[in-house]
Amino acid sequence: MKHLLGIEGLSVAEITKILDLADTFAEINTRPIKKVPTLRGKTVINLFLEASTRTRTSFEIAAKRLSADAVNISGSTSSTTKGETLLDTAKNLQAMAPDVIVLRHSSSGAPHFIAKHVDAAVINAGDGTHEHPTQALLDAATIRKHKGKVAGLTVAIVGDIAHSRVARSDILALTKLGAHVRVAGPRTMLPVGIEEMGATVFERVEPAVEGADVVMMLRIQLERLGGAGLFPNTREYSRYFGLGPRLAATLKPDAIVMHPGPINRGVELDPAVADGARSVILDQVAYGVAVRMALLYLCGGGASSAAAEA
Amino acid sequence: MKHLLGIEGLSVAEITKILDLADTFAEINTRPIKKVPTLRGKTVINLFLEASTRTRTSFEIAAKRLSADAVNISGSTSSTTKGETLLDTAKNLQAMAPDVIVLRHSSSGAPHFIAKHVDAAVINAGDGTHEHPTQALLDAATIRKHKGKVAGLTVAIVGDIAHSRVARSDILALTKLGAHVRVAGPRTMLPVGIEEMGATVFERVEPAVEGADVVMMLRIQLERLGGAGLFPNTREYSRYFGLGPRLAATLKPDAIVMHPGPINRGVELDPAVADGARSVILDQVAYGVAVRMALLYLCGGGASSAAAEA
Amino acid sequence: MKHLLGIEGLSVAEITKILDLADTFAEINTRPIKKVPTLRGKTVINLFLEASTRTRTSFEIAAKRLSADAVNISGSTSSTTKGETLLDTAKNLQAMAPDVIVLRHSSSGAPHFIAKHVDAAVINAGDGTHEHPTQALLDAATIRKHKGKVAGLTVAIVGDIAHSRVARSDILALTKLGAHVRVAGPRTMLPVGIEEMGATVFERVEPAVEGADVVMMLRIQLERLGGAGLFPNTREYSRYFGLGPRLAATLKPDAIVMHPGPINRGVELDPAVADGARSVILDQVAYGVAVRMALLYLCGGGASSAAAEA
Repeated sequence: MKHLLGIEGLSVAEITKILDLADTFAEINTRPIKKVPTLRGKTVINLFLEASTRTRTSFEIAAKRLSADAVNISGSTSSTTKGETLLDTAKNLQAMAPDVIVLRHSSSGAPHFIAKHVDAAVINAGDGTHEHPTQALLDAATIRKHKGKVAGLTVAIVGDIAHSRVARSDILALTKLGAHVRVAGPRTMLPVGIEEMGATVFERVEPAVEGADVVMMLRIQLERLGGAGLFPNTREYSRYFGLGPRLAATLKPDAIVMHPGPINRGVELDPAVADGARSVILDQVAYGVAVRMALLYLCGGGASSAAAEA
Repeated sequence: MKHLLGIEGLSVAEITKILDLADTFAEINTRPIKKVPTLRGKTVINLFLEASTRTRTSFEIAAKRLSADAVNISGSTSSTTKGETLLDTAKNLQAMAPDVIVLRHSSSGAPHFIAKHVDAAVINAGDGTHEHPTQALLDAATIRKHKGKVAGLTVAIVGDIAHSRVARSDILALTKLGAHVRVAGPRTMLPVGIEEMGATVFERVEPAVEGADVVMMLRIQLERLGGAGLFPNTREYSRYFGLGPRLAATLKPDAIVMHPGPINRGVELDPAVADGARSVILDQVAYGVAVRMALLYLCGGGASSAAAEA
Repeated sequence: MKHLLGIEGLSVAEITKILDLADTFAEINTRPIKKVPTLRGKTVINLFLEASTRTRTSFEIAAKRLSADAVNISGSTSSTTKGETLLDTAKNLQAMAPDVIVLRHSSSGAPHFIAKHVDAAVINAGDGTHEHPTQALLDAATIRKHKGKVAGLTVAIVGDIAHSRVARSDILALTKLGAHVRVAGPRTMLPVGIEEMGATVFERVEPAVEGADVVMMLRIQLERLGGAGLFPNTREYSRYFGLGPRLAATLKPDAIVMHPGPINRGVELDPAVADGARSVILDQVAYGVAVRMALLYLCGGGASSAAAEA
């Protein structure tokens, strides 16, 4: 496994291998000494040219627990690139001989582009409205843990499907693993042709979540609501597409509730549900570190370097 | 010892234990190899949601010298929390299995609040106008080093007492350790009821520092001076409440001068005094690293993990 | 070797020693495990009070590959110093017992100033319009690698010579090593008295690069062009002082092309040349890490600490 650019290029066997490895690292993360020497002497560059504290933190902790040297470059530090092209930035970093470049970028396809030009492994930490594969993998790991499997489950994804790279990667991953994926959201937030990805489309949330094993609520970008937005306001959004106690009471008894975070409490998700017994949101975060450890291990040459040291 | 939330909850025995341990780490910090393996495999998150380069640097160096993995999250990187509540931020970080969360926050009580909701140890690196316990401990360590003891000493704290978490924590720590604490400042900067904390109040600086063994000058927030502020201007402030050579000449021969930094040179403290023989300001900074090493060691499970490795 | 403040104070023997050591580290950087324990237990503070992602990243990677603890303080995080003087900042950092302080500062002479007041080794990572010695050393290392030597070569440096600390350090380093240095640029960008540094001055680029073994194109500060600037506009600049395919075709067959980065593509350097066979720009970046490892090793007490551990 060289890069992790998207769910699109992954086979079911590869996804399963990542999830199995993530389970191992999840166990390591519960130990008093949460560190393995696997990537000692390796350099991981977290190149976040779009702001993201939590994903960057998750990758940084993952790298450090594998004993890699983690170096952060973040776009919000401004002037990061002084007008340099992304390709020049990537080639320059490559010249510093990193083993892995983790890239978050506001342009769809940016990680695929640089992967063609660098020797380092490239991991996509979210590119534009395209993919967010590590989120989909941590979601799949969380579902598998709580349900024992993914195949055959019904998963409802609710929110702004059209602009969500999380939704896109989740649909790809979960349908590959055999789940039945439903999506629901305001008509203005449903992309054209989504059925071709294998998802069933609903314009109302109630039928979408009915009988679902997993309900995944997406974070709504508040700037897409009101005035020139795609939906009147947060109150309306919450009423028609939010998950509150009343709707939650109609779910299957053992349905779990997920959210990629950060939550807009009271908008897409009611606090009572977010903190309720069905919520597995914090397990998602925990698997975030474990899945990223698995990917850094696989892409960063953990296996081969472990052999080299032995 | 689970958390360090404030001086308020500490016993004299606990404070003494921290100071003793800090002396040990202060010695380690003078060695060519300034690193011990105590917190190897532990994760320390420095969550600074209020800007502070020097305290963050001090904690980061302390964590690294104990071999912990240190991860910085700083609020000035903006968008840190994307409107997320502090509780959600804390729970999310907890899900990444840190051992210690060091929190600086503009709201009084923030560390106490998150400590109730996370498994990690929480260290208060300054909360609103409430407490700054690591500053008080490093101040106590510095005084003890120079005076051999704290009990029985007279300590004068001068400046904006009302808005200073440093003053509050220092009063608590030093009175617990048996010092006589005097405070002095403009009437608008003296809090109501401070005598109940055990301090003697002066509205003029001269009698406050007369005969004192320790004179601690606080940094004045320049925005509190002038126009709508609590005192006319910096020149007046300096004249009435600053420590210049003339006032310094009236101090006890062996009195030491302290300041939590950064100094407004020429305002609350004259350069000649800041850099003079009485000044122990840089010892405070050095003890800052040592005291934080002691606290990370105690809260981060250093002792138990050392045992686990043996 | 205590500090690295500039090329000015270095002997040819010292420069050669640094370049030889850089070659060793360049080799280490090609290994699967790119890490040596030399600076274990040492603290390197990267104090960048002027924004610079790439130089900071290069130093950070260099420090980590030597197993030092690297701590970044960057001015773009704002409020870094809260109005504190540079001297106070330096003394405070010194009190935290770092082994090396790497300083980038907008004021010429800042590193020399703090070096007088701290025990730590100081490395100049660029000071105002004065020097950028690590850039000159990596340039020399790159030239030596590609040409086998520096002495006797003709090196043309083209661009805004007057405002470039890179040009200044390069002229000093390369003339010391026996190269013939030519400089070319718009008259407004040529400093008075540059001949005294040993360089030959050209007001047109064509004769400057004719017969040169090395052509070094400087990054033009775009704000110096147009309106109130020193040259009409980017198009004119490119036409008269840029290196495009036509001019490149007139170079010596084995001439190499260099650039300190980041490149303004199409302004001072045409993409076809930047990415062409003559370009050694990415080798410069690679030597950046290696040269900085060499300097951290020499200044950070690598040799003595290695002995102490043995």
